[in-house]
Amino acid sequence: MMKVLVAPDSFKGSLTALEVAESLERGLQRAESQFEIEKLPMADGGEGTVRSLVDATDGRIVTQIVTGPLGNEVEAFFGVLGDGDTAVIEMAAASGLPLVHKDKRDPKKTTTYGTGELIKFALDEGCKKLIIGIGGSATNDCGVGMAQALGGEFLDKDGNNVGFGGGELENVQKLDLTDLDSRLEEVEIQVACDVDNTLYGKNGAAYIYGPQKGATPEVVKELDEGLKNIAQVIKSDLNKDVNNIPGAGAAGGLGAGLTAFLGAELKPGVDIVIEASKIEDKVKEVDMIITGEGMIDSQTIFGKTPIGVARVAKKHDRPVIGIAGSLGNGANKVYEEGIDTLFSIVDKPMELKNAMEQAQELLERLGENIGRILNISY
Amino acid sequence: MMKVLVAPDSFKGSLTALEVAESLERGLQRAESQFEIEKLPMADGGEGTVRSLVDATDGRIVTQIVTGPLGNEVEAFFGVLGDGDTAVIEMAAASGLPLVHKDKRDPKKTTTYGTGELIKFALDEGCKKLIIGIGGSATNDCGVGMAQALGGEFLDKDGNNVGFGGGELENVQKLDLTDLDSRLEEVEIQVACDVDNTLYGKNGAAYIYGPQKGATPEVVKELDEGLKNIAQVIKSDLNKDVNNIPGAGAAGGLGAGLTAFLGAELKPGVDIVIEASKIEDKVKEVDMIITGEGMIDSQTIFGKTPIGVARVAKKHDRPVIGIAGSLGNGANKVYEEGIDTLFSIVDKPMELKNAMEQAQELLERLGENIGRILNISY
Repeated sequence: MMKVLVAPDSFKGSLTALEVAESLERGLQRAESQFEIEKLPMADGGEGTVRSLVDATDGRIVTQIVTGPLGNEVEAFFGVLGDGDTAVIEMAAASGLPLVHKDKRDPKKTTTYGTGELIKFALDEGCKKLIIGIGGSATNDCGVGMAQALGGEFLDKDGNNVGFGGGELENVQKLDLTDLDSRLEEVEIQVACDVDNTLYGKNGAAYIYGPQKGATPEVVKELDEGLKNIAQVIKSDLNKDVNNIPGAGAAGGLGAGLTAFLGAELKPGVDIVIEASKIEDKVKEVDMIITGEGMIDSQTIFGKTPIGVARVAKKHDRPVIGIAGSLGNGANKVYEEGIDTLFSIVDKPMELKNAMEQAQELLERLGENIGRILNISY
Repeated sequence: MMKVLVAPDSFKGSLTALEVAESLERGLQRAESQFEIEKLPMADGGEGTVRSLVDATDGRIVTQIVTGPLGNEVEAFFGVLGDGDTAVIEMAAASGLPLVHKDKRDPKKTTTYGTGELIKFALDEGCKKLIIGIGGSATNDCGVGMAQALGGEFLDKDGNNVGFGGGELENVQKLDLTDLDSRLEEVEIQVACDVDNTLYGKNGAAYIYGPQKGATPEVVKELDEGLKNIAQVIKSDLNKDVNNIPGAGAAGGLGAGLTAFLGAELKPGVDIVIEASKIEDKVKEVDMIITGEGMIDSQTIFGKTPIGVARVAKKHDRPVIGIAGSLGNGANKVYEEGIDTLFSIVDKPMELKNAMEQAQELLERLGENIGRILNISY
């Protein structure tokens, strides 16, 4: 009896990580063999992380109405993991770029307020640990909106609270966290962050990510000035130096804000998921690991799920099979990082659209053929 | 050290069987493993059989100018295998449908004379055994042209030799093989034939294959009458009953003609190739076989190379990995026929054109990944 851990990421736009794992399991079981299969949906802190960790731990999804990037109401969600103690939040659910129509993208106006509300709802659920994924933001407000939702005050020269958006940061002269939700004192916050941008400057949030959020070159400059100003206020009022924390500039400065205002820790997303999913305990108990993602290519070695899983597997000397919808340029780089072999689900020339639509059946077939080749030699 | 026999068919329109085998070999060798690899290009009696058997036995290709289907000169080829004794001929090289422009296709006129000339050239090379693949013909002349090239006489009511083409068959009243090339007496002829059509009638050559060769419904009837007539002449002059030999109607009746005029034996193509390639001796010496073809689907079990190879492998209880450009509908049927597992070379959504152009690199990559997964467990 061969024990196999199936621990893939989602196939974005097509299947959740659990669906990928279930499809592979069905295929392996068709291989007329005796596999004992354990499924563990994985993620890397990006889109799909809530779903995967909820599925992996038998947790639940909570949906709530929050304030969207432009102040409108949006329905957002977060996860409470099976331990009942840990909440997983994707900032994009409340403050993500896809929530803003392309014509209305304006990081001078967009706020992370909704993300703060999600944090509040997670505290209402009794969670003592928060995992926050911060990819895909529409914002450049240094997390000021997020902190405002939790009771933080950001005051202008007249002592009034500033409004929403990156355009207000230059007006902040003082910040006051006295009324911050007191439950946060008991809470550990880990932020999934895979970029190392500074808060401001040429490698900062505004210059690097502002344009894709709708900022013109002039607006980028204004936003950068705003970030520089809020960093100075943080320095003077909180005695924290946030600019040079790697990842401070992630999600329009939300990385810096979570660190400065809530005492969060920034970590590579896949490391957080690996810890939260307790995958290492499961790796020790199996003979082989199958992992994968919609695309495996030269970028996969930079913090993507398959490599995170493979590193844990290699620590315990377990073989790893990588599966993907597409094996892109440089996929062979993953061999050096612990993935032993690679297979695509695509079994004939076909269009991407068809591969995505048929992904479940293609995964089943690949699973069966992997099971069958393992039978040959096992 | 794992010994692997790589015995694929060609990928039609893309790579010869040898090129497929070489690409897989390079990939397997990239897998940081110790494989002892033997390559044996295979075929099923169809297009590519000459090339594969020549490559498999270290033989040679002979090119000659012969009479094409419409009486024009064409450059054709055949193979002399490494034993120096066996010639392999594809009738399509001299008398094939692709040699006739679509507008000029007319099975009343097309002749197998060039195929007879190729046989003659093979005798000139000293060959004592002929393997003849008869797929893809442009003809419906019952092999009369073929026999004419070798000295056979087919006489009309006035005692004159009839001309070329299926339209002349109805005029034959007498046949005389007295002057047939005497070297044929010493020669064994095997004909690769995978259809079981009768010579004439509703399941015969004219009705089933005439239309694709350019015959209108009226012409089909005429051709069928001609085939019926020549069968009667064969019966009266040679005392042979050819109509009901399965495969008599192959290649416009060339199956019947080769049997009646030259004493040839019709056999499934893949069986002939398996014997000629001596693959069974090699299967016994290896631990595993890799076979494949451009397409593996529900039709593969009907006499295609991968199944022929798999049956030999199973006779000796060796595992078989099947590889293909495309895994089509019903590919899973091959599992019951001895192919243990299936992989496509396609590693991402792509067009057929690209898969064919990149087939060598894709085969290398698949070979590497197969080698790598075998390493896991071997």
